[in-house]
Amino acid sequence: MGPVNVDSIYVTPLKQIPILGGDVLHAMKRSDPGFVDFGEAYFSKVEKGAVKAWKRHLQMTLNLIVPFGSVRFVFVDGDGSLREEVIGENCYARLTVPPGIWFGFHGESAPYSLVLNIADIPHFADEVERKKINEIEFNWEKKK
Amino acid sequence: MGPVNVDSIYVTPLKQIPILGGDVLHAMKRSDPGFVDFGEAYFSKVEKGAVKAWKRHLQMTLNLIVPFGSVRFVFVDGDGSLREEVIGENCYARLTVPPGIWFGFHGESAPYSLVLNIADIPHFADEVERKKINEIEFNWEKKK
Repeated sequence: MGPVNVDSIYVTPLKQIPILGGDVLHAMKRSDPGFVDFGEAYFSKVEKGAVKAWKRHLQMTLNLIVPFGSVRFVFVDGDGSLREEVIGENCYARLTVPPGIWFGFHGESAPYSLVLNIADIPHFADEVERKKINEIEFNWEKKK
Repeated sequence: MGPVNVDSIYVTPLKQIPILGGDVLHAMKRSDPGFVDFGEAYFSKVEKGAVKAWKRHLQMTLNLIVPFGSVRFVFVDGDGSLREEVIGENCYARLTVPPGIWFGFHGESAPYSLVLNIADIPHFADEVERKKINEIEFNWEKKK
């Protein structure tokens, strides 16, 4: 396995199945690419225009799904390479993010968007590193 | 273990953690009550006033969470005993439903609500039984 970088993130398109009374939206099966183990699932809301940045997990593999709204994710690796991905209702997909990558995210939809993270380990504070938003330069406002 | 009935369903209150820019909502940890295994996670939308009923899983244990909107769940067991639970943003909790119980649900919020099911096995058609809505008598309209 090579070093972890932003090319190690993968995007898996997900199905939205039309059903009378309300669609069914796939999230993750244990047989899917990106499934390592189940540790914890939790939601993060992000208000329109809000930025949550920056975090890096040392052990956790993230599987990120946005079933409501739209979210811009920005990833930065140790080489300083940058990758942006926008997922949400209109581009319904899962992002699998291995440990070791800095990331932040921006709410693109009013009043807020909802991110589900299906993680391979339960959250614990010691495996998370943080930087202030201005410690990694990125123009969060450049698009809308 | 006794026979499965509506008393076998349990309700686990979940934390909503206030965070600047958007709260974090717990869903499930592998150490939580109700966790059997991870098979699949998927969302079901349910429009306000829509009813999805009836289904019974023969093998799947459901863990139901409503991070957006509000949903009335109705459960019926082999004895014909009935149980209702309303969960959602204002009553944020997880319902753990063992296999063998008929259930249906009703969207209580506009424009729709979002149900996350964290299931112990992947969905497959042969373990699901269905009845038409009128095959189990229930007044879905009694409380808007």
